[in-house]
Amino acid sequence: MHETDMSPHTTSIVPMVAARRRRGASGWTHAPQVIYELLTGHHVDLRERVFALLSEPLFVTNPYDSFHALRENTLARLKRFSEAHFFSTIDYVRDPLKFAAAVECLAFLDYNLSIKAGVHFTLCGGTVAKLGTRKHHEEFIPRLDSCDLPGCFGMTELGHGSNVSGIETSAEYDPSTESFVINTPNDAASKFWIGGAAQHGKLCTVFAQLTTQGTAQGVHVFAVRIRDDDGRVVPGVRIEDCGHKMVLNGVDNGRIWFQNLKVPRDALLDKMAQVDRDGTYSSPIANKSTRFGVMIGGLIVGRLLIAQGAVDASKVALAIAIRYSRSRPQFGDRIVMDYVTHQRRLLVPLSNVYALGFALLDVKRMHARGDAGESRLVHERSCGLKALATWSRVETMQYCRECCGGQGYLTANQICVFKTDMDVDVTFEGDNTVLMQQTARPLITAAAKNAGSMLSPPATGHGGGCPIRRAQALMDFRTDALARQAHVEIARAGGDEAAMNQNLDIVIDVGHASMEAFALRCFTDAAASVVDAAPREPLMTALRLYAASRLERATKFYLEYGAMRASEAAQVRKDVNSLCGELVSSRQLELLVEGFGLPECAIRAPIAKDWRALGRS
Amino acid sequence: MHETDMSPHTTSIVPMVAARRRRGASGWTHAPQVIYELLTGHHVDLRERVFALLSEPLFVTNPYDSFHALRENTLARLKRFSEAHFFSTIDYVRDPLKFAAAVECLAFLDYNLSIKAGVHFTLCGGTVAKLGTRKHHEEFIPRLDSCDLPGCFGMTELGHGSNVSGIETSAEYDPSTESFVINTPNDAASKFWIGGAAQHGKLCTVFAQLTTQGTAQGVHVFAVRIRDDDGRVVPGVRIEDCGHKMVLNGVDNGRIWFQNLKVPRDALLDKMAQVDRDGTYSSPIANKSTRFGVMIGGLIVGRLLIAQGAVDASKVALAIAIRYSRSRPQFGDRIVMDYVTHQRRLLVPLSNVYALGFALLDVKRMHARGDAGESRLVHERSCGLKALATWSRVETMQYCRECCGGQGYLTANQICVFKTDMDVDVTFEGDNTVLMQQTARPLITAAAKNAGSMLSPPATGHGGGCPIRRAQALMDFRTDALARQAHVEIARAGGDEAAMNQNLDIVIDVGHASMEAFALRCFTDAAASVVDAAPREPLMTALRLYAASRLERATKFYLEYGAMRASEAAQVRKDVNSLCGELVSSRQLELLVEGFGLPECAIRAPIAKDWRALGRS
Repeated sequence: MHETDMSPHTTSIVPMVAARRRRGASGWTHAPQVIYELLTGHHVDLRERVFALLSEPLFVTNPYDSFHALRENTLARLKRFSEAHFFSTIDYVRDPLKFAAAVECLAFLDYNLSIKAGVHFTLCGGTVAKLGTRKHHEEFIPRLDSCDLPGCFGMTELGHGSNVSGIETSAEYDPSTESFVINTPNDAASKFWIGGAAQHGKLCTVFAQLTTQGTAQGVHVFAVRIRDDDGRVVPGVRIEDCGHKMVLNGVDNGRIWFQNLKVPRDALLDKMAQVDRDGTYSSPIANKSTRFGVMIGGLIVGRLLIAQGAVDASKVALAIAIRYSRSRPQFGDRIVMDYVTHQRRLLVPLSNVYALGFALLDVKRMHARGDAGESRLVHERSCGLKALATWSRVETMQYCRECCGGQGYLTANQICVFKTDMDVDVTFEGDNTVLMQQTARPLITAAAKNAGSMLSPPATGHGGGCPIRRAQALMDFRTDALARQAHVEIARAGGDEAAMNQNLDIVIDVGHASMEAFALRCFTDAAASVVDAAPREPLMTALRLYAASRLERATKFYLEYGAMRASEAAQVRKDVNSLCGELVSSRQLELLVEGFGLPECAIRAPIAKDWRALGRS
Repeated sequence: MHETDMSPHTTSIVPMVAARRRRGASGWTHAPQVIYELLTGHHVDLRERVFALLSEPLFVTNPYDSFHALRENTLARLKRFSEAHFFSTIDYVRDPLKFAAAVECLAFLDYNLSIKAGVHFTLCGGTVAKLGTRKHHEEFIPRLDSCDLPGCFGMTELGHGSNVSGIETSAEYDPSTESFVINTPNDAASKFWIGGAAQHGKLCTVFAQLTTQGTAQGVHVFAVRIRDDDGRVVPGVRIEDCGHKMVLNGVDNGRIWFQNLKVPRDALLDKMAQVDRDGTYSSPIANKSTRFGVMIGGLIVGRLLIAQGAVDASKVALAIAIRYSRSRPQFGDRIVMDYVTHQRRLLVPLSNVYALGFALLDVKRMHARGDAGESRLVHERSCGLKALATWSRVETMQYCRECCGGQGYLTANQICVFKTDMDVDVTFEGDNTVLMQQTARPLITAAAKNAGSMLSPPATGHGGGCPIRRAQALMDFRTDALARQAHVEIARAGGDEAAMNQNLDIVIDVGHASMEAFALRCFTDAAASVVDAAPREPLMTALRLYAASRLERATKFYLEYGAMRASEAAQVRKDVNSLCGELVSSRQLELLVEGFGLPECAIRAPIAKDWRALGRS
């Protein structure tokens, strides 16, 4: 397995993309194949078919496209993707893993298309699929599937992003005409950042405060036509373009005002709440707050897709940066990857990509099982992983870009494109600091209950010599101890929301710590499931690197809480460096990059191939 | 001074820009004025005149400009700026602070223009001014001043960025024609990333290996015409466009090959080395390595300008993000700035901007003094501060963008424009990891000499109760201890370059630690020079926040080295939070933002004014 005579300089692009093409072949292609299928987890063949479509010239973006050409080309790409019918919008509820697999493929290539598709299929389509009933499905699903009816998701308002329950758009039922009247009461209540609204959107799932028979029933969702079949904005709707964004201009974000817009009673997506002809309101969910949770629950899939997109695009950026760093000489014979500063900036994120990938897979499978008893956990973990994965992506992309020097800044080399296009992911579909609170709050509440009992750091010998067990124990302790600290500090400051806000830094740390501990557990389980030594060895090294690097980042905590001695802290740094060294000096790093199973169409960067030939293509 | 009845909601844009307009006026404008002049340090009136010019409509960028329109408009802006003759290129050596003051103004508005001007005036012009002699000054300076002869800086090659002494472009002296023959021996030796080369550059300062009379004399610089007065590429020169960069496309980066290009003997910038008619080489600097240092010494000013640009653009981004965060409600009556997570992300960087600003001012003044005995220190500190300031900018801009949610992503709100345009600053004019080594190496060498003596952490009572003195002692100890650790680890690993590379993570930490300690010292001195309580109070709070936040970031080190107890580590976090609270709950934050003295033309973001009116303009 270890072809030690293979110099890193001869690393070629071929193995990386060949893994999936040599299924079942023996020899060294076997290991990347095992790793790829383990990390990807499901619908490997479907992905293959999607990537085949994405190899068409239509999907090659042109950086010289104008603002408007980029929008039109992104729509054309979405239509082509839709027409291939890899899935139906109804799979959002019927076969969520299939739905996810197809949509996930887009983030490897083009975040404009990924988000345009995400808005259309996941947010708009998913809401219709989940909150709508048969009549909505019959009317809209076929036209969403074909993208004949481009969708928008009308939740966010200019004055209300994170505070969805505080939105002000109103929908009042009028029994005399059997219709809802939708209004935007003020400018701050205009729908803002609505992807697809500026130019292409025809159907919008509008979130509004429902009032019927004089009673406010909270936020409900309506399927509203904002443009007719010919693309003309309908009367009662006013739309403005949000204008130029720094990047991601393939998504046409717009602002919407409603003025006495009459929509039929059937516009209400009525699976979870109904309004009779006479205006009588009913819902199978008695509790108003639970009902609200269901209304916005559709965001879970969106968050998982965004988190997965962050991980998948990081794979592409890392593959490019690692390849370049192994071929670019520096000061004579050395290559830039010889420097430990390069190794740390690229290989720690590589291990993190694996950890996050396995954690996301766990949550996606849990979501697909649809067990009601697990729904809180799915919510908490999808929030936390979305925040962790996107913040990690920010860091990873920055490192990849810096490790490639000026080349990382060139559009043709892709890294900077992902880095800038994706920057929005840390605040959309829930601001990360808000999402981390969703993850942390139940842990803090639980810590409050156990506040009476002692909490001691794991003993030094706890892991029985196994660095992973030791790391898991330390990371679990960190989560518990921080949750308890947060509880104590909040209680000491008065115990109210203001006290929470004053200690939000620790609250965020709790969410962060818990998600890292969860990811380590998922990574450990995944690696343990591999029997063959060839794929197992690189996975184990990456696992140990992930564990050591997480401990290193939180050394401050472990020292402060007496969970680590200074000598162990010093050793953790050395472990990270030596694990990086182990990866680069063996075939393991290559196997891990090949294990991403990146499709050929996703790697166009000249520096990932032959940087000396740059500009010769 | 403390108008406690003033709600943060009523914060207006006016005071921020009014500070410089009410010079000497009494009352509350006095404090921002004192702070502004202290932080800016020199040529306040000249800056005022530059900002007046930059208020012309020509300098308002249009995000919808095409790739080529942006390039042409950037050139037109550079020409207008040049024609105003705020300074002469020769001021690079004659009056460096004046030169810097004028060029620095550009980074507040437009990084495209800032870099286009930096390449022309600082890199190309500065090299002609510094390494050229009277004949070069007479021929080129007037045409550089007017931008009649746009300049390029031909140092970097495709295969050689950081390793300047390893460049391969050759310049061989031919006594028969009294000319140098310049050649690009292979594709990796082509000049790459050369700003201005793709379209506009006419004069290029070319770095090449000089050979005369069969002897290689190392890297020397030649003033070479790459285009004639009509803009046609001259024979012997081949140029390709580097193509689309993710951003900063107003700078036309190109790639240059030379093929037997004959340039006259006078093309050699010959202040530091001369070649006689017959080819006899002479230089006042006997030592080859010292001579090389002088040849590339011109980068110092470029680095200081880049560092200052990072600090100044951070001021604009912070001002916008802070203003928005104080006016944007969240969940009812609260504003987003009420959350400690917002306060930390914006106010710690604010304190850092002050610290870095004072540190840069110190180094700029030292450079302007031109004392040969200080030249090593100027080099080391300009390298370290460039790295620290630009890495800080990456973090600051990311926080500013995230704290504004989606609004931070809109081009009109400026933050994302700075954030993406400036991303190149961490690797150009010296990769930050390489630059930090320049700062760290002499400290490690010094530590090796003192390796025999004991190094103990400062005693807990050391600061005599003064948190700044305590912080300074801790930060100085950190620098020394890390330098010693780096020495020990490198020695243990064999003491050679490979051992250095394996421990480069600590080496970088040494540079980082030393620059932070230096910045604290400069900030302390600056604050101490202020007598009046009104400006002194906010400066002291910012100083304490800077000190506490630096300790907090390095708590891991202090605990590991026994310099801090767990209780002090816990207290440091609380200090950071309470200092943030002190700033937001008083007029101090406003005074510090006003103290940036931002010109009106630099703040166009709707969210810095009235976010509810967004899109109404």
